[in-house]
Amino acid sequence: MKKLVIAYSGGLDTSYCAVSLSKAGYDVHAVSVNTGGFTAEEIKTIESNAYKMGVSTYKNIDAIASYYQKVIKYLIFGNVLKNNTYPLSVSAERIIQAIEIIEYAKSIDAQYIAHGSTGAGNDQVRFDMIFQTLAPEIEIITPIRDQKLTRQQEIDYLVENGIDMSWNKAKYSVNKGLWGTSVGGEETLTSDKPLPESAYPSQLKHTDAEKVVLSFSEGELVAVNGIKNDPEINIEVLNTLASGYAIGRDIHVGDTIVGIKGRVGFEAAAALIIIKAHHLLEKHTLTKWQLQHKDYLSNFYGMHLHEGQYLDPVMRNMEAFLQSSQDKVTGDVFITLKPYHFSLDGISSEHDLMRAKFGSYGEENKGWTAEEAKGFIKIFGNQNKIYQQVNN
Amino acid sequence: MKKLVIAYSGGLDTSYCAVSLSKAGYDVHAVSVNTGGFTAEEIKTIESNAYKMGVSTYKNIDAIASYYQKVIKYLIFGNVLKNNTYPLSVSAERIIQAIEIIEYAKSIDAQYIAHGSTGAGNDQVRFDMIFQTLAPEIEIITPIRDQKLTRQQEIDYLVENGIDMSWNKAKYSVNKGLWGTSVGGEETLTSDKPLPESAYPSQLKHTDAEKVVLSFSEGELVAVNGIKNDPEINIEVLNTLASGYAIGRDIHVGDTIVGIKGRVGFEAAAALIIIKAHHLLEKHTLTKWQLQHKDYLSNFYGMHLHEGQYLDPVMRNMEAFLQSSQDKVTGDVFITLKPYHFSLDGISSEHDLMRAKFGSYGEENKGWTAEEAKGFIKIFGNQNKIYQQVNN
Amino acid sequence: MKKLVIAYSGGLDTSYCAVSLSKAGYDVHAVSVNTGGFTAEEIKTIESNAYKMGVSTYKNIDAIASYYQKVIKYLIFGNVLKNNTYPLSVSAERIIQAIEIIEYAKSIDAQYIAHGSTGAGNDQVRFDMIFQTLAPEIEIITPIRDQKLTRQQEIDYLVENGIDMSWNKAKYSVNKGLWGTSVGGEETLTSDKPLPESAYPSQLKHTDAEKVVLSFSEGELVAVNGIKNDPEINIEVLNTLASGYAIGRDIHVGDTIVGIKGRVGFEAAAALIIIKAHHLLEKHTLTKWQLQHKDYLSNFYGMHLHEGQYLDPVMRNMEAFLQSSQDKVTGDVFITLKPYHFSLDGISSEHDLMRAKFGSYGEENKGWTAEEAKGFIKIFGNQNKIYQQVNN
Amino acid sequence: MKKLVIAYSGGLDTSYCAVSLSKAGYDVHAVSVNTGGFTAEEIKTIESNAYKMGVSTYKNIDAIASYYQKVIKYLIFGNVLKNNTYPLSVSAERIIQAIEIIEYAKSIDAQYIAHGSTGAGNDQVRFDMIFQTLAPEIEIITPIRDQKLTRQQEIDYLVENGIDMSWNKAKYSVNKGLWGTSVGGEETLTSDKPLPESAYPSQLKHTDAEKVVLSFSEGELVAVNGIKNDPEINIEVLNTLASGYAIGRDIHVGDTIVGIKGRVGFEAAAALIIIKAHHLLEKHTLTKWQLQHKDYLSNFYGMHLHEGQYLDPVMRNMEAFLQSSQDKVTGDVFITLKPYHFSLDGISSEHDLMRAKFGSYGEENKGWTAEEAKGFIKIFGNQNKIYQQVNN
Repeated sequence: MKKLVIAYSGGLDTSYCAVSLSKAGYDVHAVSVNTGGFTAEEIKTIESNAYKMGVSTYKNIDAIASYYQKVIKYLIFGNVLKNNTYPLSVSAERIIQAIEIIEYAKSIDAQYIAHGSTGAGNDQVRFDMIFQTLAPEIEIITPIRDQKLTRQQEIDYLVENGIDMSWNKAKYSVNKGLWGTSVGGEETLTSDKPLPESAYPSQLKHTDAEKVVLSFSEGELVAVNGIKNDPEINIEVLNTLASGYAIGRDIHVGDTIVGIKGRVGFEAAAALIIIKAHHLLEKHTLTKWQLQHKDYLSNFYGMHLHEGQYLDPVMRNMEAFLQSSQDKVTGDVFITLKPYHFSLDGISSEHDLMRAKFGSYGEENKGWTAEEAKGFIKIFGNQNKIYQQVNN
Repeated sequence: MKKLVIAYSGGLDTSYCAVSLSKAGYDVHAVSVNTGGFTAEEIKTIESNAYKMGVSTYKNIDAIASYYQKVIKYLIFGNVLKNNTYPLSVSAERIIQAIEIIEYAKSIDAQYIAHGSTGAGNDQVRFDMIFQTLAPEIEIITPIRDQKLTRQQEIDYLVENGIDMSWNKAKYSVNKGLWGTSVGGEETLTSDKPLPESAYPSQLKHTDAEKVVLSFSEGELVAVNGIKNDPEINIEVLNTLASGYAIGRDIHVGDTIVGIKGRVGFEAAAALIIIKAHHLLEKHTLTKWQLQHKDYLSNFYGMHLHEGQYLDPVMRNMEAFLQSSQDKVTGDVFITLKPYHFSLDGISSEHDLMRAKFGSYGEENKGWTAEEAKGFIKIFGNQNKIYQQVNN
Repeated sequence: MKKLVIAYSGGLDTSYCAVSLSKAGYDVHAVSVNTGGFTAEEIKTIESNAYKMGVSTYKNIDAIASYYQKVIKYLIFGNVLKNNTYPLSVSAERIIQAIEIIEYAKSIDAQYIAHGSTGAGNDQVRFDMIFQTLAPEIEIITPIRDQKLTRQQEIDYLVENGIDMSWNKAKYSVNKGLWGTSVGGEETLTSDKPLPESAYPSQLKHTDAEKVVLSFSEGELVAVNGIKNDPEINIEVLNTLASGYAIGRDIHVGDTIVGIKGRVGFEAAAALIIIKAHHLLEKHTLTKWQLQHKDYLSNFYGMHLHEGQYLDPVMRNMEAFLQSSQDKVTGDVFITLKPYHFSLDGISSEHDLMRAKFGSYGEENKGWTAEEAKGFIKIFGNQNKIYQQVNN
Repeated sequence: MKKLVIAYSGGLDTSYCAVSLSKAGYDVHAVSVNTGGFTAEEIKTIESNAYKMGVSTYKNIDAIASYYQKVIKYLIFGNVLKNNTYPLSVSAERIIQAIEIIEYAKSIDAQYIAHGSTGAGNDQVRFDMIFQTLAPEIEIITPIRDQKLTRQQEIDYLVENGIDMSWNKAKYSVNKGLWGTSVGGEETLTSDKPLPESAYPSQLKHTDAEKVVLSFSEGELVAVNGIKNDPEINIEVLNTLASGYAIGRDIHVGDTIVGIKGRVGFEAAAALIIIKAHHLLEKHTLTKWQLQHKDYLSNFYGMHLHEGQYLDPVMRNMEAFLQSSQDKVTGDVFITLKPYHFSLDGISSEHDLMRAKFGSYGEENKGWTAEEAKGFIKIFGNQNKIYQQVNN
């Protein structure tokens, strides 16, 4: 029998795929990957629904730790915000999901792998590319992309096949994960309309301010308010803290891999706070050239990740640079959470390069004399002076 | 007689310089440069004080328009925020002040030029370099840097010479200009303390929200809420609007030209809103590669400007790129001002590349077929697949 | 009748296309674009053959000047050598050919456009992309790519249709143009074999050395050995001079747009000499940062051009930078041609920044004192010293 | 007694320093660092001369292996040629010499360290910066920079102090090391004159051609013509082979750290051959993006090294990237040496990404169909098409 693994989310599209592929004679094994978006209860529901769709087995893979280790860690090291805005939440998730799913398919000797992406967006590129690269021998099947059915046609098909569930289309399509939640709706199909407050997953609960201390060790978030835990747990803790302040909402407009522009709302409180806090700690502990060259590499790291090129070996080379740059990024960052925004209050670090004994900016300086400063400036400006004299 | 031009701000340091240089036999001509920090009244006060210090002439140069044309315009085109935070308000001002002052000195055939910078910071580098480059024949005199007097010594000297004014040191040293106001104080000499609310120039007046429309034409801010004016006026208008919301406050930690880290608070409502609004409009109207390469150049444009290298011809080359990139950056940006923060609601532009007719992100797509998408992905992923097959 | 323009080179593939499309009922208009590869006599032969294939009209477009103005000029300004080796001769030609052909097709209101590229390489991408971008309303027809015939099948078809010419496959496939000649053969399909001497278009004629002076004005080659002419003529003159020395041969290994590696031999005497000479002149006349940032942009300019992205507006932005950087790149470069190689002897320029009066490298210096140098070094090294003291 | 270490080369300048510092009451310990420039015999001569100058001890440090491990290795990984020309031979040597000398000074508890650099060039910056960074407690003494004596004054002083050696100034000042030999002379003080053949250290001995095979393992040169040895030995072996062909001569024009332009001749046969061979192997084994991003980093790695910033931690981050990029750069490179030049004939590698089974450039392709290629091109060109339609 033709063994097939399907990336199953429990939604209408992948339910349609599961049923129709079972009917078509495949031995269907459903798999979902939890990158921080599902509760234990939700997974149970997905599981019981999967079996209703006729799958042989269902498996949920808990990929939260591997998601952090393989991707999020480097997004933090690189302070990666696509177009200076978006923490790449969905892009990063798809990469890990694709890797986990294809590894699972190989482990059970599947000959086929199915996913529910359409032909319009980024996800098909990320899934197909990673599947083809890691398992060229497994054939990819994509009913949604190939058949272009309407929602109603899918529902009708399911009813005909004895699946009569309620498939109300939510007003907003929401994708939740450890590194942020994306929100799409009719507004994001326009260029000029913002999402309403109610479309975002978290709602403002507090009107006061709240201090938070984030502790980093070699670039990793090792504690929140002094309580140590694994970084991926700390991210969740911070998200819970900050969500009551409705922090981290924005709309990203970006270039899809297929060349069109796309617009999507997101809420990513922990991601934004951590990146800004980590960056501040770096400004105190890294040299000017480390900051400058990190920017170049991180900008491209984000682009390549977004475009599904995670398996290009250049990503490993960039990660080696980023990892190497973090050995002194250790210390505490002091933050204040406020309604809809947050402020960075300061840092404390053994590796802080801002020390009064080397001279204080704008104050009288102890490290060098006026004559030395003049010598510095004279020679530092040499080339511009020569250029001007030669050419004017 | 030895003709000398002094960059005169009316503060204690430059007053000391004016008096002591006059006494030393120089024919002192005071000049101040308004880059948006002075009201007409303040200038009158500076003028009358200047004459008390014994200067022969006093002149205020209104450099607001030239400041915009020579620097701010390109900082907007490039969305330049140093270390992703600071709009380079002070760095940019010093450049223009230096250029205006040295041009004035040349125009009146001065043999000497004096400024009041210390030997500790960035300003001395910017002033000296630009003076030396544009007028190598004019000698630079820097009493504050050379003599290292205390404030009390300077005050005593002035009193001895009949100048008995009140020189109370403000708790916070504030530098105001069109592109932002910097704030230094005892907190900014630490790494861990934020500035108190009261240290910032603007205080929260509104608790509601307010919509603003910014209109750009080829990258320049040509109207605020539909009212057309010169861009430098529009910046002031926006600053006035946004200052009631206490928007645009942050603390910058950066690398000084002399190699130490420096920390400074700032409030730059208009600068931050304009840069974010302009960047959003670019995300809709520029291609992926325009956005990517602009980032590289702008990052370095900011670094070189900060370090006083404005006269390096590479700056003109970068400006040519930036100018060229703006021809389609025309349209309206919709913004909501709120207490302490703002949100970008969307844009409207004839040049918007996000158009439903070319396909909508995440929706069913009309521009290409499933087969075409598969062909794209297959070939787009070729190299990674080959790499994996060769090496694993 | 269905009006069709075909990019016609006179070879077997495009002859097959011309005949079969005529037979299929298209009104076929043949066009060839001369980018420096054809003599007047060769064009006559192509023309007379075209009519034998049944085309309605034949036109040769002389694109040498536009080729220089639109592409080569910027490749020189940027010193562009792909992977530090290849002057992008073929990539650049295809771009211009595509533009000229589609403009011609639009001018005669063609509904179809045909080219003879296979589905394996770069050329199809460049042709299709530029055709689709500049004339989305014109349908592209590609018989060679679609039908995958063998050479023998094409020859048999032509004989059946009364075309009995000799179509001997040359041992080496050669593509000649103003900016270089590419050479492919059985050796270039391997990774380890060089091309034999005889495969290259020029053969060594001289064993002596010969001096040449190249004169540049704002980056453009305006004279060879003092004889002024249009730059594209000067390139040809230099090619003729240098070809007797068998200069400019190499093998390029690069990444095709379709993700596979490709290897091709080339001979590009003028291109290599001009780029190296121009670069030397820049080293004397540009500042350090101009040289550094030009490298970044030029490297990407070459990548995008190679990949057919010439119409991306970022290319115009880069060209604005490059043009702006050339205003002082004026002067003479002295070169010696020798068998198989050449040497750069020096330059002479009014804008030369290397002048004894500003100090001579390694000699006693007049521009600054020992104390000033020490001050410079002390402050220039500040950050590394602080880093070391904080961290060790 | 005041313990002083002097960087001693045996030339007039450092001899003058050694004598005058001894006379001034310092306990002078001479040290020379061999980075491949000295034979055992030359070292003996230096040693015996050192004692004549009154030093307490003399030590030669053999730094060839550490030179390779700390610097040259990464220059090869990065294919670093400054301004696309110069292998940074002298820059790289000075760094290692400075590190070895200051470590030696610390190991013997010296309070002073002296070097013979003038105030005009790069070397003083590299020495001072590394000394100050690694041992801020040791005072730097630079008699040549401070006293600005003429050669005759130095000679007279030595004669007065009983040192009567012949100090004929060579017509060309030559600096020899493992990674190349630099040559300065009256011609290099001009912009337009080349060095005569006789000024270069190696002279043409062969008129034939000679094949050489270089074997790389993870980017390092592990064998020459099949004979395995340590990379630094292999570099010497290749230099000996290639020097008979007078390969690797050129003149570098570059920006000194002090802002003036400098010109210097060099001969670096092994460096140039190895870099070009290594780069060719990379073109076969690395992905497009590895090649592209390596270029950015290597270009800056060279700039920072040249400017004495070797101790900036960003250099370690870049080295981590470069090291990580080399894991597949293993294979043989085939080279032909010829009079004054060499050619790269090809490579053989298990990791070669150019394999016929994935499709051959320009040949009929087996990896994808015409339809898939068309789908690729259609979507690859999407953004340019949309841009054109929106804007024209």
